[in-house]
Amino acid sequence: MVEPVERFLVLWAEIADLGHAMGLLSWDQETHMPRAGGGARARLQATLAGVRHARLVAPELEETLERCAARAEPESALAAQVREARRILGRVRCIPERLARAQAEAAAAGHEAWTAARAARDFAPFRPALERLVQLAREEAGLLTAPGAPLAGCGLYDAFLDEHEPGARVGDVGLLLGDLARELVPLVRAAAASGRRPDPGAARGEFAPERQLAFAREIAERFGFDFARGRIDAAPHPFCSGFGRDDVRLTWRYDAHDLRPALFGILHEAGHGLYEQNLPSEWQRTPIGGAVSLGVHESQSRLWENLVGRSRAFWIWALPRLHASFPGARGIALDALLPLLHTAEPSLIRVEADQGTYDLHVCVRFELERALFAGELEVADLPAAWDEAYARTLGLHPRDAAEGVLQDIHWSMGAFGYFPTYTLGNLIAAQLFAAARAELGELDALFARGEFRPLREWLGERIHRHGSFHPAAELVRRATGRALSSADYLAQRRADVREYYGVA
Amino acid sequence: MVEPVERFLVLWAEIADLGHAMGLLSWDQETHMPRAGGGARARLQATLAGVRHARLVAPELEETLERCAARAEPESALAAQVREARRILGRVRCIPERLARAQAEAAAAGHEAWTAARAARDFAPFRPALERLVQLAREEAGLLTAPGAPLAGCGLYDAFLDEHEPGARVGDVGLLLGDLARELVPLVRAAAASGRRPDPGAARGEFAPERQLAFAREIAERFGFDFARGRIDAAPHPFCSGFGRDDVRLTWRYDAHDLRPALFGILHEAGHGLYEQNLPSEWQRTPIGGAVSLGVHESQSRLWENLVGRSRAFWIWALPRLHASFPGARGIALDALLPLLHTAEPSLIRVEADQGTYDLHVCVRFELERALFAGELEVADLPAAWDEAYARTLGLHPRDAAEGVLQDIHWSMGAFGYFPTYTLGNLIAAQLFAAARAELGELDALFARGEFRPLREWLGERIHRHGSFHPAAELVRRATGRALSSADYLAQRRADVREYYGVA
Repeated sequence: MVEPVERFLVLWAEIADLGHAMGLLSWDQETHMPRAGGGARARLQATLAGVRHARLVAPELEETLERCAARAEPESALAAQVREARRILGRVRCIPERLARAQAEAAAAGHEAWTAARAARDFAPFRPALERLVQLAREEAGLLTAPGAPLAGCGLYDAFLDEHEPGARVGDVGLLLGDLARELVPLVRAAAASGRRPDPGAARGEFAPERQLAFAREIAERFGFDFARGRIDAAPHPFCSGFGRDDVRLTWRYDAHDLRPALFGILHEAGHGLYEQNLPSEWQRTPIGGAVSLGVHESQSRLWENLVGRSRAFWIWALPRLHASFPGARGIALDALLPLLHTAEPSLIRVEADQGTYDLHVCVRFELERALFAGELEVADLPAAWDEAYARTLGLHPRDAAEGVLQDIHWSMGAFGYFPTYTLGNLIAAQLFAAARAELGELDALFARGEFRPLREWLGERIHRHGSFHPAAELVRRATGRALSSADYLAQRRADVREYYGVA
Repeated sequence: MVEPVERFLVLWAEIADLGHAMGLLSWDQETHMPRAGGGARARLQATLAGVRHARLVAPELEETLERCAARAEPESALAAQVREARRILGRVRCIPERLARAQAEAAAAGHEAWTAARAARDFAPFRPALERLVQLAREEAGLLTAPGAPLAGCGLYDAFLDEHEPGARVGDVGLLLGDLARELVPLVRAAAASGRRPDPGAARGEFAPERQLAFAREIAERFGFDFARGRIDAAPHPFCSGFGRDDVRLTWRYDAHDLRPALFGILHEAGHGLYEQNLPSEWQRTPIGGAVSLGVHESQSRLWENLVGRSRAFWIWALPRLHASFPGARGIALDALLPLLHTAEPSLIRVEADQGTYDLHVCVRFELERALFAGELEVADLPAAWDEAYARTLGLHPRDAAEGVLQDIHWSMGAFGYFPTYTLGNLIAAQLFAAARAELGELDALFARGEFRPLREWLGERIHRHGSFHPAAELVRRATGRALSSADYLAQRRADVREYYGVA
């Protein structure tokens, strides 16, 4: 007679393995798969997804889970396992196979229509596909928020927020992002009005690709990324995939004349990777063994990329190394480089936006998504609403849909409620960094000597090692001593604009 | 109501996908996995193997298979599907889970004991592990050959031969290998007695690794390997893995001072790869969609590596290209290189053996494996039997077990009956090549102009496109007009010794 907890963990470990196999096949598709392999790969992934889904809805899993629930002490790890498993299974069980299949098909068609529409720089060919995706998403959210369902009583948009950021609700997120937009809009205007502009040539030089990789790799290793348990490969876009804490993979891309895309891309992904590599080993392959939310994950990448990697102290240590590594970049000077790394100039494309304005792009998407699922906006009116929001928020006017409403891939795959996690990551990163500073003392002196271990260990202790034991909001509160707010992040943004634009 | 054939093919396609996922994870482990990832990877593979096994033994598969059998016309593709599925399932169903698990554990322990024993150059520490492996293998073979079992009436060793070379039996294989040894032993002696020795420096030069890859890759492409559906990566040992015909991967390794390991390694694997890439597209993910046997697979690699890649005609075309690619290898001359590529000098290590003596290494292993499973030899007596066989066959005496009985990995993992397929591959390759020549006319004139398409298309037509529709022996008979014999291969061996040693 197998003990139910033991049996539950065996069943869950196999579900986790199937997820890791799918993750590895996706990584391979982005990095190494021969270009004709896509059809077979899609079928293979569909098979694994089907096997995994069947395991998630199997009666034995449900039974053992409920027997675990009956014997879980409050506050125990088992109680957390039960909470997370119920959350995950609650979502899975709510979505009928018919709907999941329709969504997968609509996402495939949506991605195709979006690619064509973006090439034609015209929203019209994408509109029917997006309407279908929104309709199915509304249906999904309706099921998830119906009486008796896991998110009963919540609004439709909450169903998507909760998927990526468990526990997040539109009211709280709206307050945080509202505060942010209210302060950032005048700050960005003040920067523009200051008349100062960083020298766009301040980071230019000749950067041999293999040296870019070696340089960024060395810094990632110094941050603590363990290459015995990870690697970096080239890919069309940078990402981080973890298949358990002993196998964490980053990707990168480069510009031969500008070190920034490769360097900050790798530092960003290394931040994700540090989280993955330091998840709790004793809870691997269990419901609480993984990262707790996308926002917390993003906080780790943003912290290492922006709060460490763009700091003056970091560059005091890194710039001589950069000069030694790249003879063709000896002209890069600290006092010209730093303003460029803290630019705040409105731009139309989110993925190319600077740190100073990035969150305003997210605020626009949040506002539109919220309206779409509150029934205040229809897909047909989205392009006009987009343009109006960009004019109001960033003072810019897209020339066409490719520069506007069609720029991001997310909606084309039916991913709603994802964008806010980027900005939540910024807020969490700033609050964590302020707390670390308050406890560890002046980090700048350490960074200037290339010492990052105290910060990494602090993050390991406060964030990484907890996996999903605590819900995200609780984890942040415990790590920093208070609930998440936009205060630390706004203080940073103001300090940057003061320092580099002389205003605010 | 789903039609049973349709349902059977869906079930089998998912089983094939699970196998492909496992194959890709193995490929990744050999090529890219971070070194600490092995533990998690082993668990992941065990999960996938368990899922696949459960699908293979599921009653629904058996039921739909028998309903397919009832409606399959003789000689039809469906009849072949039924035949292959029954063969595969017959083996799987015969092995109780307890035995499969014990074998997996014994193989893991065996591999560890073998590694340690080889390092100590002493058979003793490996002996208990090998005894356990042989005992379990005898048990497995006993089940497979018991009355009512798939191989009822066969000998124990047949059970292993049949696993790798379906339909092969110890009597037939023994006849082929016996003929071969009888002729090769005096031939190799005559070569040694000739007093001629090829110049071991005739292939030496400076070969930058990335150019080695580019050079071999260009030839593989010229042979017809499609890089839109395949790739080459570095790995500790060369192999070919296919995950469907649109995703076929080769690996390579190199010696910076000798082009041969990389070049012939890649040409060999490209031969395997051409088979995989040209398997029948309409039967992908079905029981007859894959390669029919290891011997036939090996015939494709040996044919391109040896019969094309070592031929004078090929080098008339390739040598100027080699000189142009490697300024540090301009001294390599056709008339010194060719004898070196057709050496026949007894050596102790199989994987380093030349083409002229390679099969004698296989004959020794076949003789010993056959005796082990005929009850004529015990593990304790294996080292002495090994040394006696090497003295008799190759006239050589290993200094210790590392140079002798411990050299190959196969037994340490419980793989018996695998070695003969290497030599069957040589025999099949020679017979196919002779048949192609008889039909296509003088291939040498084509090779000397770098034209390989007629040969590749002939192989595609006669071998690749059939998948496992015909059993291997039947496929060879149809392709060449007669049953497999050692005649063509021996004629080749004699011609080589005559040409390069002036004897025989």
